[in-house]
Amino acid sequence: MEESSRPIPEPAAGAADLEVDREEEEDDPESISLHQPLLKRTPTLTTNHLAMVGAKVSHIESLDYEINENDLFKHDWRSRSSVQVLQYVFLKWMLAFLVGLLTGAIASLINLAIENIAGIKMLLVGRLVNERRYINGFIYFTGANFALTMVAATLCVMFAPTAAGPGIPEIKAYLNGVDTPNMFGASTLIVKIIGSIGAVSAGLDLGKEGPLVHIGACLASLLGQGGSDNYRLKWRWLRYLQNDRDRRDLITCGASSGVCAAFRAPVGGVLFALEEVASWWRSALLWRTFFSTAIVVVVLRGFMEYCDSGKCGLFGKGGLILFDVSSVSVTYHINDLLPVALIGIIGGVLGSLYNHLLHKVLRLYSLINEKGRTAKLLLSLGVSLLTSICLYLLPFLAPCTPCDPTLDAACPTVGRSGNFKRFNCPNGYYNDLASLLHATNDDAVRNIFSTGTPTEFRAISLLIFFAIYCILGLFTFGIAVPSGLFLPIILMGSAYGRLLALMMGSHIYIDQGLYAVLGAAALMSGSMRMTVSLCVIFLELTNNLLLLPIMMFVLLIAKTVGDAFNPSIYEIILDLKGLPFLEANPEPWMRNLTVGELAAAKPSVVSLGGIEKVVRVVEVLKSTKHNGFPVVDQGVPSPIGMPTGATELHGLVLRSHLVAVLRKKWFLKERRRTEEWEVREQFMSVDLAQKGPKIQEVVLTEDEMDMYIDLHPFTNTTPYTVVETMSVAKAVVLFRQVALRHLLIVPKYQGAGISPIVGILTRQDLIAHNILGAFPHLAKKEKSESTNS
Amino acid sequence: MEESSRPIPEPAAGAADLEVDREEEEDDPESISLHQPLLKRTPTLTTNHLAMVGAKVSHIESLDYEINENDLFKHDWRSRSSVQVLQYVFLKWMLAFLVGLLTGAIASLINLAIENIAGIKMLLVGRLVNERRYINGFIYFTGANFALTMVAATLCVMFAPTAAGPGIPEIKAYLNGVDTPNMFGASTLIVKIIGSIGAVSAGLDLGKEGPLVHIGACLASLLGQGGSDNYRLKWRWLRYLQNDRDRRDLITCGASSGVCAAFRAPVGGVLFALEEVASWWRSALLWRTFFSTAIVVVVLRGFMEYCDSGKCGLFGKGGLILFDVSSVSVTYHINDLLPVALIGIIGGVLGSLYNHLLHKVLRLYSLINEKGRTAKLLLSLGVSLLTSICLYLLPFLAPCTPCDPTLDAACPTVGRSGNFKRFNCPNGYYNDLASLLHATNDDAVRNIFSTGTPTEFRAISLLIFFAIYCILGLFTFGIAVPSGLFLPIILMGSAYGRLLALMMGSHIYIDQGLYAVLGAAALMSGSMRMTVSLCVIFLELTNNLLLLPIMMFVLLIAKTVGDAFNPSIYEIILDLKGLPFLEANPEPWMRNLTVGELAAAKPSVVSLGGIEKVVRVVEVLKSTKHNGFPVVDQGVPSPIGMPTGATELHGLVLRSHLVAVLRKKWFLKERRRTEEWEVREQFMSVDLAQKGPKIQEVVLTEDEMDMYIDLHPFTNTTPYTVVETMSVAKAVVLFRQVALRHLLIVPKYQGAGISPIVGILTRQDLIAHNILGAFPHLAKKEKSESTNS
Repeated sequence: MEESSRPIPEPAAGAADLEVDREEEEDDPESISLHQPLLKRTPTLTTNHLAMVGAKVSHIESLDYEINENDLFKHDWRSRSSVQVLQYVFLKWMLAFLVGLLTGAIASLINLAIENIAGIKMLLVGRLVNERRYINGFIYFTGANFALTMVAATLCVMFAPTAAGPGIPEIKAYLNGVDTPNMFGASTLIVKIIGSIGAVSAGLDLGKEGPLVHIGACLASLLGQGGSDNYRLKWRWLRYLQNDRDRRDLITCGASSGVCAAFRAPVGGVLFALEEVASWWRSALLWRTFFSTAIVVVVLRGFMEYCDSGKCGLFGKGGLILFDVSSVSVTYHINDLLPVALIGIIGGVLGSLYNHLLHKVLRLYSLINEKGRTAKLLLSLGVSLLTSICLYLLPFLAPCTPCDPTLDAACPTVGRSGNFKRFNCPNGYYNDLASLLHATNDDAVRNIFSTGTPTEFRAISLLIFFAIYCILGLFTFGIAVPSGLFLPIILMGSAYGRLLALMMGSHIYIDQGLYAVLGAAALMSGSMRMTVSLCVIFLELTNNLLLLPIMMFVLLIAKTVGDAFNPSIYEIILDLKGLPFLEANPEPWMRNLTVGELAAAKPSVVSLGGIEKVVRVVEVLKSTKHNGFPVVDQGVPSPIGMPTGATELHGLVLRSHLVAVLRKKWFLKERRRTEEWEVREQFMSVDLAQKGPKIQEVVLTEDEMDMYIDLHPFTNTTPYTVVETMSVAKAVVLFRQVALRHLLIVPKYQGAGISPIVGILTRQDLIAHNILGAFPHLAKKEKSESTNS
Repeated sequence: MEESSRPIPEPAAGAADLEVDREEEEDDPESISLHQPLLKRTPTLTTNHLAMVGAKVSHIESLDYEINENDLFKHDWRSRSSVQVLQYVFLKWMLAFLVGLLTGAIASLINLAIENIAGIKMLLVGRLVNERRYINGFIYFTGANFALTMVAATLCVMFAPTAAGPGIPEIKAYLNGVDTPNMFGASTLIVKIIGSIGAVSAGLDLGKEGPLVHIGACLASLLGQGGSDNYRLKWRWLRYLQNDRDRRDLITCGASSGVCAAFRAPVGGVLFALEEVASWWRSALLWRTFFSTAIVVVVLRGFMEYCDSGKCGLFGKGGLILFDVSSVSVTYHINDLLPVALIGIIGGVLGSLYNHLLHKVLRLYSLINEKGRTAKLLLSLGVSLLTSICLYLLPFLAPCTPCDPTLDAACPTVGRSGNFKRFNCPNGYYNDLASLLHATNDDAVRNIFSTGTPTEFRAISLLIFFAIYCILGLFTFGIAVPSGLFLPIILMGSAYGRLLALMMGSHIYIDQGLYAVLGAAALMSGSMRMTVSLCVIFLELTNNLLLLPIMMFVLLIAKTVGDAFNPSIYEIILDLKGLPFLEANPEPWMRNLTVGELAAAKPSVVSLGGIEKVVRVVEVLKSTKHNGFPVVDQGVPSPIGMPTGATELHGLVLRSHLVAVLRKKWFLKERRRTEEWEVREQFMSVDLAQKGPKIQEVVLTEDEMDMYIDLHPFTNTTPYTVVETMSVAKAVVLFRQVALRHLLIVPKYQGAGISPIVGILTRQDLIAHNILGAFPHLAKKEKSESTNS
């Protein structure tokens, strides 16, 4: 054997020694004070891979958006025929089409179910109240809501805890590169659909909008992998999509489709995905998401036309109708400037206050949730009871108002939906608070947005409405049912908007209904801090383009005011769940820290040799939790023009690939480099894409343990690297912009005996919170510094 | 002198030697065939820094979007107080406000001028024709147009050649990191404004939309630097904005404001900047551009309300009115599906055909332009004559149509604007071709978009209109006046859309006017290949949200069909001008090439020592054209834990900074490292930001030449680096995503005597065209490969 005749030193051992040397040196306080005058640090940077997923704490992993250029991939790439490329392109568009189609269909189904269930409930209760059988009405109303909540909550608690809540923060994290487990599974999808129907029908103060976004994302994920984890379609074409990048694109399509289905706002959906959800964006993706949302709109329109013929039961002017205020022509007047600005300011203040209080409530709820499933269930049912009691009893406080005969609308309302609910009043009268509270949330929004009815609601009714929805909005969001944030905020916002307009009386020129719309938009902006996408969603929702300049004005003010107090609600939730979300902009103090210093605060890097003993690979995999290992060849056999004895940074090998090789038992008897065809006989690039198996599942004999693996063909030879002098700020920009999972740090020195690798940075190492834990001095410094937006 | 007692080798010489070694080795065909089986190459990668700017070939440079983390910057950063940070933030918003305000004001001014000049012209000609003084009318019409074109073209040719054309490709290139000289100067701005008024008033087949975008960008650039190059405001606050990054953001605001001012489409403006113009995008920027466009809308609205009171001369239903089709409610019918799809397909085919032909015409024009100013002027005047002749004479071909008394509109039209031009007809009759041709372009669009008038235009008139505007559209764009592409394409597209609707007769259910709108959108999409932004612009332009699903449908079809044939018109123009635009997606074949191979095909890298003799710095600056030089310390004095004799990659120093140091004559008598305070006494971070001076302007005595410079404080210690094994594809992604100017290549080997730097990549090295020139084998391979979108 010519290879074995040459002595090859143990590469890993050498590298480890060097690492130890470095560490000892760096711990010397003298040397630190000389070179890093700004920094003192605790010796280790501890990172935490745990996050709240659903209601449980789970281990989370990062996604591999980087293209893994190893020999197998390169060969696969080169041998890909143009037919295969066409298949791939066709598949991507086909899946975008299917995502739109199915999201649209499911949204239609959910609306149909909600309108019918809630409709029957409301009609019956209305009849009982009209007949003055108040107690029966109360029992029936509360009981029905209780039962519906029970269904939703039980499903959530028992089968899919990840289906609770809106799901948008987790989607945001996924698109940022954080894989939260069980987030996009089949069970989550089914529970989300049924749970959402149950929870919304139960009259809880939550929307179906957030859940629809999650449903779109689930659909996209399932379609992309060809089915659920257990029953998976083995279509050969799907293998082209077996990577995190294409899944990310598809899930972006799903999220936009969901927003589009929720608001029937195709452009708004695309913009929402762009502004709020996605971390990376490409022009090609803009186009594909636009395609998906176009399909959704067509499906929804088809469904509504079908239902117009009366075949959908109580679904008539259902949840899919826009809150149409297009009949109003908007005339601007200088008098309106002040109240409109006021709406924006109040929106910002209230929005940030809502964020703040919701944060507290969610922390409280997480304590309750820790007590187990029963506690979660009881919490949900308790909130349901509270909601039912409030919604049923409060309208009795309101006096009856005589109908205004000059209005066209039927008064009191006949049937289910309508502006003037009779409730407990005699004929010819209506109860204005019942019009708002005794309706589905969608109907309530439609009623409060109603234009041309300046005398319909009394100020005190609006105030009660606002107050009760503030309380319910805070306490409903965190319970164990699928719940969206959009509608509760719209309800609150519209109430204060209309209230303000009512108080201004004849001093204003814009219709009160439009003030309600502006209030809703302002509070959304104050809480969620979006601008362009919200503006477009509201324009599409209300079908009135003339609102545009004033809407922009309000949104900008609300966001500015809100930003002065706290971050957006989604960021707060992300932080609360402990998801390692990587922000687009580095913190200012990150400029004062180099990646070399960061790496020195971590346990030393574990690298592998290009040809490594099986036993060592197994040991390394079992003793560490790293997902990537640098591959370093030492004393390389004199490459062209190089002095002998140099070390070579060959690249980075992933844990999942190592496990795949161990499972296939592709071992060598002797220490030698393999030829390309040898690997290709055994492995396809696709074989490495699977993520499931763990190292603990691999069983090897002792003979096998003594053999060798040639890691070269599996090593990504083109990892992204930075020099150790790079500031953390710039590394964060690189990490985020190029969507990395591992970032290798190379030394700035070049010479004999220097390790070619200083450290590895992962997402967790670059999260501001983690760094500040290891470098408390920076934390102190940061507090005295204002941030630079 | 303790420093001088240690022998310090000449770093650059050593590095150069190594490079030569490498090159020799790499030229050995044996070694290549072993390691790079796919590649054979010519030895040099030649890059070309020249591009067409305006009509001249100029030297262009890249922009520095990277944060230059040298000692001075770091100190400046650390010492920045929170008041200064607030000043900076305030300034950014203030400038965004001013950009919106001024763009809106200038747009109002331009519209006012055009409507009045063109209006008076049209009224007079109309009167002459009515009086049957055809010859006089012709002379007057042609003469006026000739004179107006003369003004516009002379200004362009004499004072600001960069003001010709739309300017959008150059803005796109600027935001991609390519600095085209004289593009955003004060003279360009003024010529653009006056030239645009002249050219549009002259009835040429061009729009003011593209120029408005350029005007917005110019304004932003001038405001950002505090005035024109010669008369610059020396406001202390402005120094915070003395970097390419903030200028980029501001110019993005300017471009969106321009689009918004052109179409009164604030959301569309933001999206246009996002989808078409900008290469990088941040959520914060989305918000700021939105703010700018909101200001523009407010200004335009104020201007229109002022003009409603009749104080603006002929400006009544002027260019700022939307093409309002909101009165039509859109009902969808299955019968419309096919013609609408057909419109999309025709839009795609015609759009790509237009791109193809325009490319040919522009190449022809560039030959004419090379002949000098007179040729350019004559060309413009010739096109003006052709346009005048066509527009004046063609309506005489059309017969007179009797007015339809059932319509509300005045027939024949009284005054300037209106749907039914009398022209040469008796009273009670109108000339339908004159309604289209004998009007300003804005009015023509409004007339052809008119709804509820199915019998107004005859097919033959529409056909003539379409044909003439196809010809004029091709030959007008390249002449030396400010010209936009939007309106010519809208005119062509609306003609074929309406024609198609007319031919379908009663088989369709959607109004003919809407078909014209769809045709315009389809052709825009077929030529410019935008989707979401075009959709929003058209919705805002026509003020009809119900169009949305059908508009999306048409745009998607047109873009798909167009993409099958050729790239978008802006990409064609960018390519034609030779601007090194860096695409977002690397070409597939770039995966088969490493950056090491690319670097080996370039002249070897020139590096400087950390402490360098003045004479050598001057020599290097004079003998090369590089803008960045790696700084390498050799035999570094034993850093902690390092073996002695290692080399250290200290960073990258920019040419402009070296020149600044030479100009300040900050030299050392002996070879020593300076302390931080020494530099800070002499330099502010701002001093280095100036770009103007050239090395040729620096005059040094021989004594000074013999002294030393300590380059360490000026060196960016955190340049982005890649290992030589990185594929070009991934390097392109990095380069583009992080917005780099220089990318250092470090060796994968670590050992004694290895140069710490393998090469430097710049934008030019990563342009596909340039690489293919150096590696012809890849070019052949590429042709046989289909691209993977």
